[in-house]
Amino acid sequence: MTAENGTLHGVGLGPGDPDLITRRAARLIASTPVIAYPAREDGTSLARSIAADLIAPGTREIPIPLPMRGDREPAQAVYDRAAAEIAGVLQTGQDVVALCEGDPLFYGSFMYLQARLSPDFPVQITPGVTAFSACAARAALPLVARNAVLSVLPAPLPDADLTRHFQGADTVVLMKVGRHLGRVRVLLGTLGLADRAVYVERATQLGEQVLPLAEAPDPAPYFSMILVTKGADPWL
Amino acid sequence: MTAENGTLHGVGLGPGDPDLITRRAARLIASTPVIAYPAREDGTSLARSIAADLIAPGTREIPIPLPMRGDREPAQAVYDRAAAEIAGVLQTGQDVVALCEGDPLFYGSFMYLQARLSPDFPVQITPGVTAFSACAARAALPLVARNAVLSVLPAPLPDADLTRHFQGADTVVLMKVGRHLGRVRVLLGTLGLADRAVYVERATQLGEQVLPLAEAPDPAPYFSMILVTKGADPWL
Repeated sequence: MTAENGTLHGVGLGPGDPDLITRRAARLIASTPVIAYPAREDGTSLARSIAADLIAPGTREIPIPLPMRGDREPAQAVYDRAAAEIAGVLQTGQDVVALCEGDPLFYGSFMYLQARLSPDFPVQITPGVTAFSACAARAALPLVARNAVLSVLPAPLPDADLTRHFQGADTVVLMKVGRHLGRVRVLLGTLGLADRAVYVERATQLGEQVLPLAEAPDPAPYFSMILVTKGADPWL
Repeated sequence: MTAENGTLHGVGLGPGDPDLITRRAARLIASTPVIAYPAREDGTSLARSIAADLIAPGTREIPIPLPMRGDREPAQAVYDRAAAEIAGVLQTGQDVVALCEGDPLFYGSFMYLQARLSPDFPVQITPGVTAFSACAARAALPLVARNAVLSVLPAPLPDADLTRHFQGADTVVLMKVGRHLGRVRVLLGTLGLADRAVYVERATQLGEQVLPLAEAPDPAPYFSMILVTKGADPWL
């Protein structure tokens, strides 16, 4: 019966501005009658809001209400339930679009659906613009050129790990800054990199801020990032 | 007179499939009467071919003929000349779109125009989908989740540098593989990571290949990449 199953589409929405959705993602969202998306427990959803102008009237919606800072068990159960509901749709031969902020396979929530559903259903992934590309664009900051190395680090890592990567890479993208901002700022100061750091909050979204790290708020909101470049070679 | 100058738009085209161009990039390309793009010395241009269906008749085109493996001097002179020609357009108040494969600030040719023109003209950057997101999508390979670290390395780096980053990161994106494929394959074998490596050639373009590293051609074409993941945590 597999030939008659629907396809699960993991669709990257980009960093937040609906204008940064790709043409393929826009078409898939507009033409697929069932969409799923991560939501807050109060029912609001950043992913849905990014795609809102594309969702046709009458579309069936499957919100996935995620605990923002829960431990693993509740989120596992939520993904299990969502995957079961989506499987029920795919088994009827209907495709499902799973919306994902940024890029689906880069710290994206889609990976948890893919792990559960790809053994039984065809999966297609539409890549999206990552938040770090958007942050660099808004800060007009070249990230890497020629043979430079870029590392992407989640800020919750311990100081020793952050230090090793700050020292080893030419450019660092620090994700998930939030309440770690103060600690990271001290660390970058110690490493002599504070002047090389740019803080970007809600890139391409309402309330966007681009600031020198010294002026960044502490704690920072969840959708914030720090870019550290030791200096690209923009003249080639 | 600055207020009357045109704006230089650095526009990311994504990995190659025209369908992965963002809505904003599509609109800018279609509505701007002057576009510039990197080209081969024979005049063909991958960037132009990605955007071809969007370029309006009568658009003025400024190809930038780059030596693929030249030393720094000729490429510098080429960017100097292109920047001068683009400056001449911007001074008349006309906007210019500079096309860029992938994302403009991520190993993108646009950075060399930005360095030359941003002191005198307004610059706006439209981020694009990076090639590594497209490679991951086509391989259906989760890159990073939770607190995992991703590093992007150009393959021409010496073995010692590659080894340090392969050991220090959870996931590695190896760019610019080309003639370095054999050396990298041996190195990954030595590190016990060969089975974790996927080779992707021309992701989302004609002639796309997704192969286990063991089956990859040596030498590889320029537009190829190796993704190495030590194992994400896809169940959350």
